Amino acid sequence: MELLFLGTGAGVPAKLRNVTSIALKLLEERGAVWLFDCGEATQHQILHTSLKPRRIEKIFITHLHGDHIYGLPGLLGSRSFQGGETKLTVYGPKGIKDFIEVSLSISRTHLQYPLEVVEIEEGVIFQDEGFSVVAMGLDHALPTFGYRVIEKDKPGVLQVDQLRDRGVQPGPLYKKLKCGETVRLEDGREIDGKDFLGPSIPGRVVTILGDTRFCSNAVELSKSADVLVHEATFNRDQEEMAREYYHSTTKQAGKTALLAGARRLFLTHISSRYAKESWEELEKEARDVFPESYMARDFMEYDIPLKK
Amino acid sequence: MELLFLGTGAGVPAKLRNVTSIALKLLEERGAVWLFDCGEATQHQILHTSLKPRRIEKIFITHLHGDHIYGLPGLLGSRSFQGGETKLTVYGPKGIKDFIEVSLSISRTHLQYPLEVVEIEEGVIFQDEGFSVVAMGLDHALPTFGYRVIEKDKPGVLQVDQLRDRGVQPGPLYKKLKCGETVRLEDGREIDGKDFLGPSIPGRVVTILGDTRFCSNAVELSKSADVLVHEATFNRDQEEMAREYYHSTTKQAGKTALLAGARRLFLTHISSRYAKESWEELEKEARDVFPESYMARDFMEYDIPLKK
Ligand SMILES: [Zn+2]
Ligand SMILES: [Zn+2]
Repeated sequence: MELLFLGTGAGVPAKLRNVTSIALKLLEERGAVWLFDCGEATQHQILHTSLKPRRIEKIFITHLHGDHIYGLPGLLGSRSFQGGETKLTVYGPKGIKDFIEVSLSISRTHLQYPLEVVEIEEGVIFQDEGFSVVAMGLDHALPTFGYRVIEKDKPGVLQVDQLRDRGVQPGPLYKKLKCGETVRLEDGREIDGKDFLGPSIPGRVVTILGDTRFCSNAVELSKSADVLVHEATFNRDQEEMAREYYHSTTKQAGKTALLAGARRLFLTHISSRYAKESWEELEKEARDVFPESYMARDFMEYDIPLKK
Repeated sequence: MELLFLGTGAGVPAKLRNVTSIALKLLEERGAVWLFDCGEATQHQILHTSLKPRRIEKIFITHLHGDHIYGLPGLLGSRSFQGGETKLTVYGPKGIKDFIEVSLSISRTHLQYPLEVVEIEEGVIFQDEGFSVVAMGLDHALPTFGYRVIEKDKPGVLQVDQLRDRGVQPGPLYKKLKCGETVRLEDGREIDGKDFLGPSIPGRVVTILGDTRFCSNAVELSKSADVLVHEATFNRDQEEMAREYYHSTTKQAGKTALLAGARRLFLTHISSRYAKESWEELEKEARDVFPESYMARDFMEYDIPLKK
């Protein structure tokens, strides 16, 4: 489970920061990659990584500003051209369906895989045995969502040594015990798998927010998150500007992480007005509020550790 | 008057060739840049050149395939964000208006300059005192245009030495003589400016074609062109494939240039199946038919010489 920042800039592309896209690599967990936003040239950024477009299983769009969606038609088309055949689901605010349909139909792009586009409301928007995803509205100039990705807890490891001590030899029974079932041995004894499982492995939480002012839903979505990805379009002193343009400052991003009790914060959506030399200062501004703050950069990767 | 190739690949972006866009720099001629096609990340390519998006006066779209238009919404938005205030006109086949309108309105992009979108038919689609542009249909999988840009002839240089020999001294009269007017001197003599102009400077012709099979309109548009930009999606041996996918081979591009009596041919829209090592061979294939053939590369620039 790794985060890979494909684009960490705001509004318009710059040489060092492309417009927004973030990949959540779930290759070990489900052989898939999830994308959050898809600004123009996201597929070009991907060319410089080991990501395979056909691995992309889901794309979550936070909002419909151009710097978050203009790379979508091209990526969808190229995924097909490059042999993608498995289903892809796009989640996003109302309007995303029109944009995709018009772009693909006008350009006569015929996808070789099933594409589902889900215009979401707040709530649990996806759930299966491994993950659930919760969306909540944020405070931006147009409808915008933040996403909380929740990995489900995994059962603990089967304590093989203890079973052997009780004379239960490895075999087909072990599979049932691993699932916490009760089995009857040949000698008549009943063994409950749950008694032989180590502590369950708690799932991780990754929160990726769209553009937003400081707001309570941002904190709510980020509660105890292992990683929070938060925009920081303005520096600490620009709170007025941030409010006017429906964005956040570095300090506000830090405050959200602090209030939520998150473990680690990545700042993204950095305006090109801030030259490379000032990035460290921006990072420091967030750290003054929340020490575990890091400035994201294009192509930065972060391996999300298991909870201890 | 220079050609600047911003993207010379086919279908999907590759590391060394982005999808299609070609700039015709008319900075000396009209302080403007014209763009032909605008594949995804054209604005990113521009970041690596000296082009200013606000200088772009016209964008000519050859056809609506994604690799020729997906960069349009982003470029239009960024041109506004970066202070572009002068009018921009986009020419293209029916459907281009819908694509632009839906993309801009869904993303709530409000341009700070007047945008005109013209859905064209064959014929003279633009004309002023400096240039005219003719569009004709080509043979591709969907409606596709080729464009012939015609620079108007310029009057010759005023032969100042000859005027002095006749006793006509420099002064306000010269301006009229330069325009070929007749003036009366103080001594009563009449002087016809046309008798004192050097040979007129013939305008140049630049033909930029969209994707196409070999066809007579391609030849027609390219008649005596100073430069012809022609797609070459396939190599010489793939004539069958080229036909099936409505494209051309290197050899067919050369043939069009030869039949048209063009001066110089640039091959573009090169498939990523052809690795860098084979580009010279592709160029040679066209040269076997038309010696003045050149393989375009991203960021290649060509200064179009005046006719002698
Ligand atoms: Zn936004
Ligand atoms: Zn095409």
